[in-house]
Amino acid sequence: VSGFGVEHLPYGAILPLGGWTDADAAAAGVAEHLGGRPVLSTRLGSDAVLLPLLVAAGLLGDDPDLAAALLAPTLNPLIELGAPAWRELRARLQDVLPDGADHARARVPLGRCAQVVPMRITDYVDFYASLEHVENFGRIFRPGKPAVQDNWRHLPVAYHGRASTVIVSNTPVRRPSGMLGPGVFGPTQALDIECEVGFVCGPGVVGPIPIDEADDRLFGVALVNDWSARDMQFFEFQPLGPFLGKSFATGMSAWVTPLEALAGARVPPRPQDPEPADYLRARSPWSLDLSLEISINGQTVSRPNASTLYWTPSQMLAHMTVNGATLSTGDLFATGTVSGPEPGSLAELWEGQRWLADGDEVVLRGRAADVELGEARGTVQPG
Amino acid sequence: VSGFGVEHLPYGAILPLGGWTDADAAAAGVAEHLGGRPVLSTRLGSDAVLLPLLVAAGLLGDDPDLAAALLAPTLNPLIELGAPAWRELRARLQDVLPDGADHARARVPLGRCAQVVPMRITDYVDFYASLEHVENFGRIFRPGKPAVQDNWRHLPVAYHGRASTVIVSNTPVRRPSGMLGPGVFGPTQALDIECEVGFVCGPGVVGPIPIDEADDRLFGVALVNDWSARDMQFFEFQPLGPFLGKSFATGMSAWVTPLEALAGARVPPRPQDPEPADYLRARSPWSLDLSLEISINGQTVSRPNASTLYWTPSQMLAHMTVNGATLSTGDLFATGTVSGPEPGSLAELWEGQRWLADGDEVVLRGRAADVELGEARGTVQPG
Repeated sequence: VSGFGVEHLPYGAILPLGGWTDADAAAAGVAEHLGGRPVLSTRLGSDAVLLPLLVAAGLLGDDPDLAAALLAPTLNPLIELGAPAWRELRARLQDVLPDGADHARARVPLGRCAQVVPMRITDYVDFYASLEHVENFGRIFRPGKPAVQDNWRHLPVAYHGRASTVIVSNTPVRRPSGMLGPGVFGPTQALDIECEVGFVCGPGVVGPIPIDEADDRLFGVALVNDWSARDMQFFEFQPLGPFLGKSFATGMSAWVTPLEALAGARVPPRPQDPEPADYLRARSPWSLDLSLEISINGQTVSRPNASTLYWTPSQMLAHMTVNGATLSTGDLFATGTVSGPEPGSLAELWEGQRWLADGDEVVLRGRAADVELGEARGTVQPG
Repeated sequence: VSGFGVEHLPYGAILPLGGWTDADAAAAGVAEHLGGRPVLSTRLGSDAVLLPLLVAAGLLGDDPDLAAALLAPTLNPLIELGAPAWRELRARLQDVLPDGADHARARVPLGRCAQVVPMRITDYVDFYASLEHVENFGRIFRPGKPAVQDNWRHLPVAYHGRASTVIVSNTPVRRPSGMLGPGVFGPTQALDIECEVGFVCGPGVVGPIPIDEADDRLFGVALVNDWSARDMQFFEFQPLGPFLGKSFATGMSAWVTPLEALAGARVPPRPQDPEPADYLRARSPWSLDLSLEISINGQTVSRPNASTLYWTPSQMLAHMTVNGATLSTGDLFATGTVSGPEPGSLAELWEGQRWLADGDEVVLRGRAADVELGEARGTVQPG
């Protein structure tokens, strides 16, 4: 499968499905690690490669901290080891995986795996980093009023989302109910998605994180689908922001792409005017040239690109912690809807005239050269 | 100490200080439970009573699940056991603790203990449940505009706060820096507090939680201080709500008072007009008659009462999950500023003319008849 070669090597946590028997696990020597617990894996082509089996085979060196981290059910201990350890693991995987014979027993076809959210998230933050998204929403839903608030160009606006409802790709999304207006309760009639890029962070640290140190706290990248019930959101959000209109589900791709795998996708960010405050000015600012794609029931409806975002990932992380807030290992932040010439939400695409129906399947995809981000897929179930 | 008798018995997690030696721990037979890990405790007078020692002494029965839960470093496993187990534990504690001889070795003077946040919080939600608070803020900061938004009487407005910066009483609060206005970065010049009541929740469950089942998911009550940097908050909060102006610190009292200990404090809630939607209508609605107190540098400046809140705790929990959002064991939600005839924030008390100075010590207290809530204390450190 193109996009999942040794130049990629994303990380995930898999649960073997029925086809993966106790005998398989015993034969592979990891029965004790597969007792219903998620297993950390990387992906090569259409196989998951179980990292504990590579450890057991002695293919990943003899660092006991790394070995312990790779036996954990979440990525948190690996993230906690820090950027130098991530780079070393990645280099070693790129060294050993091309020789298929060495690790054949560690490979499991993806069809025999389920996947789970691969990290324990303490705080999930969602930004609002796309200028075109802000402008589009203003034009469609607040015509005649200024679309871009006074603060927007001075700081990356964001809010905290619900960590417990971050769900992995392929988890169905039940249409949520709530207050749709004064005295009106029921299932949302305006179910939407937002195509976003997410960043898995750590090691945890007490803020502020200086912007030039932010890159080493960005473990990897995932696609994020910020499912949104617009009627609930618009009724509830004044003055404290989105709550139930968002908190029912936030989808993420099962595979987390190491930031290092996207080195070739770094591009200069778009100009910022006015120049932001010192804590938001990086010595070497970068944005990611990621081609995104929103597909509904098999049909591509929009192709935004993350390079059009106004605020950069490093700016977001520096901002989030500038007040001294603690970052926890495994935290997730997302960019907010990525809209540029093509929009990242159906509200913008269909101008509020149409929304998702029960049974609709939404798939987000992303790509940068030879790296295909894992997809974020979800199907709408009736409320 | 009055307010901490057997009719109270709050729960907390303590770290023995220097005065508590390894020999003490060994003599008490719990050395293995005191290896730098927090120890679950209740409080009697001015002593912590270490629950693992009561278990070891055979005073709490022979339920292995309960014993395991009480050896944990957080309240989460105890909360997970559910309301019937909480009631049983409480009844047993009330049975055994009056005989001081039985448990003398389990008592440690509070002066020899530090305390930590006693639960692992996945999601922290802050409500906006006081009508007077909303009206006061409108009058002071948005004169001439309607103070109460159209949605406010139809649902309990809320937002997600930052779970990682919930701090326990006695943790100092560093004055946060951030954007105070266009192009203006620096330490906040408008540091405030909000006196709130918090609810520790569980067992975790996928929502919606029917309002008449909400009580059994309310484990206990704590005082919450929602530290706020008003200049940062007012600049950043449109349109997605408070973020850095709040996320630097949320104080909570170290002792969590079982909801059962406040049975005598239940009072009918104030009338709601219009009548809320079905999912917000309880068969037996209740509010809590809790006398609160804000003290600054030893001087009481305001005495709000939680019975004046418009929305009830059960309504808040039902609302938070009505869209299907998952509640996690150990989650915390708070009421928002409790203002009535007397206000719960300095912004209201001093009308924006004055704010906290470096070195100021703020203490929140609360009481209902014979039950004294643990205090939430914090001192402002320079930024």
